[in-house]
Amino acid sequence: VSFRERDLLGFIRREAGAAGDEVLVGMGDDAAVIAATEGPLVIAQDQTIEGVHFARAEVPWSAVGRKALARNLSDLAAMGARPWLAQLSLAVPDDVGEAEAREVVRGFLELARGHETVLLGGDLSRSPAGLYLDVSVVGRLHGRSAWTRGGARVGDALWVSGVLGGSREAHHHAFEPRWREAWALRDEVSVHAAIDLSDGLGRDLPRLLAASGTGADVELAALPRRITSKGPVSVTAALADGEDFELLLALPSGSDAALAEVATRYGTPFTRIGVVTAGECRARTEDGAWSAWVETGHEHAFGD
Amino acid sequence: VSFRERDLLGFIRREAGAAGDEVLVGMGDDAAVIAATEGPLVIAQDQTIEGVHFARAEVPWSAVGRKALARNLSDLAAMGARPWLAQLSLAVPDDVGEAEAREVVRGFLELARGHETVLLGGDLSRSPAGLYLDVSVVGRLHGRSAWTRGGARVGDALWVSGVLGGSREAHHHAFEPRWREAWALRDEVSVHAAIDLSDGLGRDLPRLLAASGTGADVELAALPRRITSKGPVSVTAALADGEDFELLLALPSGSDAALAEVATRYGTPFTRIGVVTAGECRARTEDGAWSAWVETGHEHAFGD
Repeated sequence: VSFRERDLLGFIRREAGAAGDEVLVGMGDDAAVIAATEGPLVIAQDQTIEGVHFARAEVPWSAVGRKALARNLSDLAAMGARPWLAQLSLAVPDDVGEAEAREVVRGFLELARGHETVLLGGDLSRSPAGLYLDVSVVGRLHGRSAWTRGGARVGDALWVSGVLGGSREAHHHAFEPRWREAWALRDEVSVHAAIDLSDGLGRDLPRLLAASGTGADVELAALPRRITSKGPVSVTAALADGEDFELLLALPSGSDAALAEVATRYGTPFTRIGVVTAGECRARTEDGAWSAWVETGHEHAFGD
Repeated sequence: VSFRERDLLGFIRREAGAAGDEVLVGMGDDAAVIAATEGPLVIAQDQTIEGVHFARAEVPWSAVGRKALARNLSDLAAMGARPWLAQLSLAVPDDVGEAEAREVVRGFLELARGHETVLLGGDLSRSPAGLYLDVSVVGRLHGRSAWTRGGARVGDALWVSGVLGGSREAHHHAFEPRWREAWALRDEVSVHAAIDLSDGLGRDLPRLLAASGTGADVELAALPRRITSKGPVSVTAALADGEDFELLLALPSGSDAALAEVATRYGTPFTRIGVVTAGECRARTEDGAWSAWVETGHEHAFGD
């Protein structure tokens, strides 16, 4: 089932829809041109690779395209930014036909429409082996400053959105990027630091703390664990599974009411898991003992 | 030879250098933040894939990283934009070690430094097979409007930069993106339409003409053909080889002196190859006969 670049490109251009007045040159030229009149922009780029981030036997093609964009929108959420634009690079192997490639694009565009994201361009190529997606996004702050990992202060409360662990069995292809919750929170409280949990709390919490130059005391009993048909996932799974795509936030104490309001509005739980300290990063286990944080979670290793 | 994500990331962050005042948040967070105070931005994204765009036996690793960025800077040139920022996604297979991956990054960064481009972020992953690069770039117009493919007018002269054909044997890993020439031209003449020749003049000229709603008369004898050790490449090669990464421009007649000045300043030849018409796209062969344009050149086919 061979197909031509221009056929799939034509499909993408038809389906992508209108780009809005601030897109001065949209798809179909050598590059796209954007007005960028509203102050700081946030840019991110993330890959989604067959055999690394998904297995084709396990998910529909549309979910692959969806996830490739959703990972990036989660990065925007962690900066306190709203989605605006995306570019999609797609490399298609010989054993993926045009119908399947269109499904990938459909899943991408369906999430884009639901999350105020305009597909502006990208690149299409053959792949020698495996489907490969790489998405870059541009987010907006509408004059506000971005959240970073580096602003946590001693005494801040640490909160996570949603539930942790078990993502590979459950929602890691279907998660909702949390930018709407993040954007709403900005009206209510001062978020000091934020990160999205892509590699697992076990690894991503130390990243936030290192950037902030702080430590933390975390109550493992407080972690919001995913409930599966076999009961809640283990604490180890909640720390190390990765691909949660939830937000970890450092907020001044006294933010509980604001978080509760946003949680209710979006149906997204927020859970207080600990406090930022001037010491090391520690965890209190369910038996009440404190121990040093162990960096569990996902890290790519190469050449193994 | 296994290595860890953080080792290669650390190398990239050290080597990337300073980002400038308009980069509000640089590498190392969930995303980057840019000030974007100078009006329209130009964005593009292009893949460079082992087995499609390069073969590892044929080029040094540094040339692969160089080309991945250069393709994108050529797109900016075709919009009349200056380079500003880049994001690099890199997927590394098990049979590429850290030393080789660093060479790829070095080649990328060396071109970036020579072309005023700041590496701001991207993504690093394992690849199940083959080295995969995808680069997105942000260019600036400093208040000027972008060139598109769609502005050619009847009577315009068609010009190409550099020489065409034979790129796979010669310079396709070493070409210089033509944005400096493009930027200098903006001070001298009104460029009506532009495209960069990535798939070959045979295919890219009809793209510009279709976007402009015009035809053209092209003198094949005028094509600037690459000279190899065996003499000039054939006209067919000049039309169809692709990967020239030269500019095709539509300019008002009478632009010759301005082009000559820019050509001298940068040591880049510019050649007049034809004229924009209200008719079809035609070619005059070396025997003087006119014939309809044949769309030769590169197009990805999938599933073959």
